[in-house]
Amino acid sequence: MAQQAVTPQSVDFAAWYNEIVYKADLAAPSPVRGCIIIKPYGYELWEGIKGGLERRFKATGHQNAYFPLFIPESYLKREAEHVEGFSPELAVVTIAGGKQLEEPLVVRPTSETIIGEAFSQWIQSYRDLPLLINQWANVVRWELRTRPFLRTAEFLWQEGHTAHATEADAEAETLQMLDIYAQLARDDAAIPVIKGRKSDREKFAGALRTYTIEGMMRDQKALQCGTSHNLGQNFARAFDIQYLDENNNRQLCWTTSWGMSTRMVGAVVMAHGDDKGLRLPPVLAPIQVVIVPIYKNDGEKSLVLETIARIKNELSGAGVRVQVDTREGLSPGFKFNDWEMRGVPLRMEIGPKDVEKNNAVLARRDMGKEGKQFVAQEGLAQRVKDLLAEVQNNLRQQAADFRDSHIHDVSSYDQMRQVVEAGGWARGWWGGSGADEARIKDETGATIRCFPFEQPGGSGQCFFTGGDAPQVALFARAY
Amino acid sequence: MAQQAVTPQSVDFAAWYNEIVYKADLAAPSPVRGCIIIKPYGYELWEGIKGGLERRFKATGHQNAYFPLFIPESYLKREAEHVEGFSPELAVVTIAGGKQLEEPLVVRPTSETIIGEAFSQWIQSYRDLPLLINQWANVVRWELRTRPFLRTAEFLWQEGHTAHATEADAEAETLQMLDIYAQLARDDAAIPVIKGRKSDREKFAGALRTYTIEGMMRDQKALQCGTSHNLGQNFARAFDIQYLDENNNRQLCWTTSWGMSTRMVGAVVMAHGDDKGLRLPPVLAPIQVVIVPIYKNDGEKSLVLETIARIKNELSGAGVRVQVDTREGLSPGFKFNDWEMRGVPLRMEIGPKDVEKNNAVLARRDMGKEGKQFVAQEGLAQRVKDLLAEVQNNLRQQAADFRDSHIHDVSSYDQMRQVVEAGGWARGWWGGSGADEARIKDETGATIRCFPFEQPGGSGQCFFTGGDAPQVALFARAY
Repeated sequence: MAQQAVTPQSVDFAAWYNEIVYKADLAAPSPVRGCIIIKPYGYELWEGIKGGLERRFKATGHQNAYFPLFIPESYLKREAEHVEGFSPELAVVTIAGGKQLEEPLVVRPTSETIIGEAFSQWIQSYRDLPLLINQWANVVRWELRTRPFLRTAEFLWQEGHTAHATEADAEAETLQMLDIYAQLARDDAAIPVIKGRKSDREKFAGALRTYTIEGMMRDQKALQCGTSHNLGQNFARAFDIQYLDENNNRQLCWTTSWGMSTRMVGAVVMAHGDDKGLRLPPVLAPIQVVIVPIYKNDGEKSLVLETIARIKNELSGAGVRVQVDTREGLSPGFKFNDWEMRGVPLRMEIGPKDVEKNNAVLARRDMGKEGKQFVAQEGLAQRVKDLLAEVQNNLRQQAADFRDSHIHDVSSYDQMRQVVEAGGWARGWWGGSGADEARIKDETGATIRCFPFEQPGGSGQCFFTGGDAPQVALFARAY
Repeated sequence: MAQQAVTPQSVDFAAWYNEIVYKADLAAPSPVRGCIIIKPYGYELWEGIKGGLERRFKATGHQNAYFPLFIPESYLKREAEHVEGFSPELAVVTIAGGKQLEEPLVVRPTSETIIGEAFSQWIQSYRDLPLLINQWANVVRWELRTRPFLRTAEFLWQEGHTAHATEADAEAETLQMLDIYAQLARDDAAIPVIKGRKSDREKFAGALRTYTIEGMMRDQKALQCGTSHNLGQNFARAFDIQYLDENNNRQLCWTTSWGMSTRMVGAVVMAHGDDKGLRLPPVLAPIQVVIVPIYKNDGEKSLVLETIARIKNELSGAGVRVQVDTREGLSPGFKFNDWEMRGVPLRMEIGPKDVEKNNAVLARRDMGKEGKQFVAQEGLAQRVKDLLAEVQNNLRQQAADFRDSHIHDVSSYDQMRQVVEAGGWARGWWGGSGADEARIKDETGATIRCFPFEQPGGSGQCFFTGGDAPQVALFARAY
């Protein structure tokens, strides 16, 4: 129960992150290499993200289904780029039911192949299109370097898989889902992400085009928060996903896939957290308001708890997620620190004087001492809801200001290097090759995060090659 | 789109079941041995079950968490009975990231071991108890004979894992969760299950006591629908789950675990279905009301669809899950059969005459022609809700009547065999040994489903050994 100081972000951001994840009780280490245990507080945060996505998926006509965890090894090999991309990371079941398997089974790293095979069975005619499927699942990618939530050997995610009659329909779906991810990030997670297209070098193995949302963390590094892939006809060809069109001609489908994962929990930690702990956006916070009773003796205690019980009911009734900290033997100061660590957006204190004066003390997690105020108990629920909305907006605004102040336009490689060395994101005209990208990564550690949808228009001179450049790219170091 | 007849239940129940599962679009075969694909309609049914459980778990103070899919092989071996029970069914990852693993990883068949290890870290003192955790997850048991939903190599479930300070607390939790399963089965799935205790021969590998809910399917076979285990201190001992009590003495915890799975989808199919297809209980039905428009020309069509749009809004607004079947080129008769196959509880037909007379035709899936009625459009939402409640009650009542008429008291082995041969369940005083149980299984195919909680009281004479019997047991053939 001892409260130890956390390594400040400014000293060692990576250490800060790891400490926060465990101290805020989001996760615990596990005995399996690269895997974490997601503890209830972290899981509720993920459930909030799930809920926000699920609502938007349903509103756009998607349905959930569930496909096998295991994929026959031969399936993965049917799409050449795909197998090349995922082979090094696979976990393989070779023994089952006490016997060596004739064909090893791969634990799904993603499900394009097994879902592609199913789609080829399910789709007969144009009437079956579009087919809009989503799966909530665990996937396994045996990565060398892992970090809680950001990159774990097993993670939870949703993977959408859709099939369409035309290239235009598939492209529209791909962009629609990217938009939904951006909404989730901005409106629910308070992370104003940048939408854009990945370079060929960074796109999904087997995709025609990959779109991404990129968020800036508080160490200025980029985090890819979600991706949406236009798979063209690559998987349709590999898995024979065909349909009969209106004229009874066989046509190949156009497919898409898109995913967002528990990595988003890490994004919330790193985009908003400070040296005191998490700062959770109210829309996602498992606990939006914590009430800490203040008392010195049993008489005060019963007085205070009575008022708190009434307020708690009022807030719950208004749809606020509220918890009362009735733990014994802990000082209010200890509790304040504890809930700050857990990032609860609003803390309410009620003591004997507050009971007497029909007041309450409210403290905002997104602000310092200036965020503390006395409020009347009358109309408290509405006041709390307004304040939660303010906290949500403020976190998003802070993240947007932080991001905007760390993106710099560059027109030469020298400039670009300076920006990146200082930790920022460099935006510049880009006409280079994949080999040029690789060289820049080697020399600076930065990659093209995306070609942002928001473009200056026209064309310019590539900051690296000096040649013609059709678009600007965003470079940054990334997770 | 052709509608072929289903094998009647009376001809071949197993064939009927398999056909229904696929024709009602609950699932599709998969290329992985023993695994199915859960299609959207089946997945929504599962989501209904999940929702019903989740609500009850939360109301009783449980929290969700997520533990790794993989379990180090050595963990499984720490509880002797446990490893013996699960060893033959394990799927084992031996290669990951391109390398042979030093210690193979077992794909979880259940998570007592890895969660036990975590609990040993998380629990320090009596203040940390009870620890009430639930996990929604996929598990793998490599069984020889598989059947969609009932027994698949991979299945979805929830597994609850709790730790307590006293034996009494653990027992109370075990029984509470069994009760929640029974409520889910009875109130949501309309399956009136029998609660009881498993014999030592049938209990969970590593448990002190296993409690079960047993449902009777329409072929009279028993289906174990959910189990709740009092693990005693077996896993606490194996994983060193200890706490400091109020006097600062180290004590072993008492733990429980309990699970309900996608098998419950199969239970809903087999407890209610008939030769026309599924009959879904309204509480769980993904679609509660389907509206089929009846028209002969475009004029009638627009008239009818206008009224239907209004009715659909009204029903949706009242919280009814309603869908309009606007598919072109299919006759109403075809559509009726299709929705009967999918078990939608209420079908509404609206034709030009209904529009004119402000009527609607309602047909109940749980009844034959006598379930068809004309109703006024005025007050339709309330009427529909009342009817849905009636359907729910009727399905439960039918299942209860069916069950009760097929349970017979027996006082001799001959009698018991006759009952079992005829497909029924035999209830009789039991004082036999595990070896006696095994012999009965060999000779009749029936096992002790449970010692029902509802006992006649007192003691009697064992129908098998003739000796003293402290309780009655229920014998049946089972899935």
